[in-house]
Amino acid sequence: MRVKLTVAYDGTAYHGWQVQPNGITIEEVLNKELTEFFEQDIKVLGASRTDSGVHSLGNVAIFDVDSCMEPTRISYALNTRLPKDIVVVDSCKVDDDWHPHFVDSLKTYKYRILNTTFEDPIRRLYTYHYHYDLDIEAMLRAAKYFEGTHDFRSFCSVKAQVNTFTRTLKEVSVNRQDDEIVVKCTGDGFLYNMVRIIVGTLIKVGEGNIKPEEIEGIIEAKDRACAGPTAPPCGLTLVKIDYI
Amino acid sequence: MRVKLTVAYDGTAYHGWQVQPNGITIEEVLNKELTEFFEQDIKVLGASRTDSGVHSLGNVAIFDVDSCMEPTRISYALNTRLPKDIVVVDSCKVDDDWHPHFVDSLKTYKYRILNTTFEDPIRRLYTYHYHYDLDIEAMLRAAKYFEGTHDFRSFCSVKAQVNTFTRTLKEVSVNRQDDEIVVKCTGDGFLYNMVRIIVGTLIKVGEGNIKPEEIEGIIEAKDRACAGPTAPPCGLTLVKIDYI
Repeated sequence: MRVKLTVAYDGTAYHGWQVQPNGITIEEVLNKELTEFFEQDIKVLGASRTDSGVHSLGNVAIFDVDSCMEPTRISYALNTRLPKDIVVVDSCKVDDDWHPHFVDSLKTYKYRILNTTFEDPIRRLYTYHYHYDLDIEAMLRAAKYFEGTHDFRSFCSVKAQVNTFTRTLKEVSVNRQDDEIVVKCTGDGFLYNMVRIIVGTLIKVGEGNIKPEEIEGIIEAKDRACAGPTAPPCGLTLVKIDYI
Repeated sequence: MRVKLTVAYDGTAYHGWQVQPNGITIEEVLNKELTEFFEQDIKVLGASRTDSGVHSLGNVAIFDVDSCMEPTRISYALNTRLPKDIVVVDSCKVDDDWHPHFVDSLKTYKYRILNTTFEDPIRRLYTYHYHYDLDIEAMLRAAKYFEGTHDFRSFCSVKAQVNTFTRTLKEVSVNRQDDEIVVKCTGDGFLYNMVRIIVGTLIKVGEGNIKPEEIEGIIEAKDRACAGPTAPPCGLTLVKIDYI
């Protein structure tokens, strides 16, 4: 059977989702624990390859297994084996041909900017501390230019290798929540570092170094050098993936 | 001059506040960095000796130093030296005879219970995960019995050596905040493990194993064995100390 997992993790200690030679990854830990538990060679396939240091409340992974175990029990069994910073919050059976890359989905990311004079040690791993004032009104106006279907080449790491840079963002919002500024992005897909470059650019807008109406031109330029810097990974969390 | 520091920290990696032989403590780190920075042997004195694993947003410490440095700049200078999980959020000069143990104060602690089916990896170090339903209404009624002046021997670790077990709690509240249940305790002083035993007892109430009106008798018993268990340290944060 094919099983779909919903996976939450604290990305602090991991070199991102995808297996790679120079550090431990979420995918690697899941492969190891599933292989040991089912005593079969199991490889998961993830919906989103989050970067090193990025967190998740609801990444999705599938794997195939020869087992008659009740699928909803797999999450409980796995959680007793997994390290505390990875939690499977749901497991269910899906059709044998269900594949997260070939089903329309909406991914929601949240980026938390801690906007205080001093760093907060309790939130330091899950927020980006920025201690100057930011013009949230301007950031929100700028955010609206990202919504819709665009070629997001300006907001993609130059390292990315993809067929198309076109993505559709359904919503980009900026909200103050107590002492945090939260940027929320929902879209049908995201390029490599895309949310972090959008946030880095919105911070430039909040500082007054980019005008909100300049975003349109930055998108049109299709040039990474025109956008702002890539915001640090620790502030970013993949909140959920909705299959539609 | 005598300097007062307000210190925030993530207690996860520390064996509490007070210097001790078998692990690194907050006090020890502050002593080391202050001694190196001022090139004088400096020892801080803390207002609250938080336990191993307990967090703080506003513990207070004093130290004496021979320096003409602007006191408010000390926090900035120290933060460049301190590890990321300790942040001095304020520094100011106080009278030479000002001492946190001999000034009336109100301490506020917050205990966060994450009340969800699965652990949240992003909050695991700062909340106590409890996955069964809790009767918050009953917990709140029970909480009110703690308010006022009582002999809190039943809510004190048997290891404690103190002259008096009498403390005055100004407020004990229980609130649901999204998927967390937050217990807030404000009082003029707290015994060893007192907040954690109060929370452990309130959880017993929430489970239906202790009735709210039984709290009165548990306090009167002056016997640690009558109260509930000591809740884990990770859920506890010293929020602030007000000098009145």
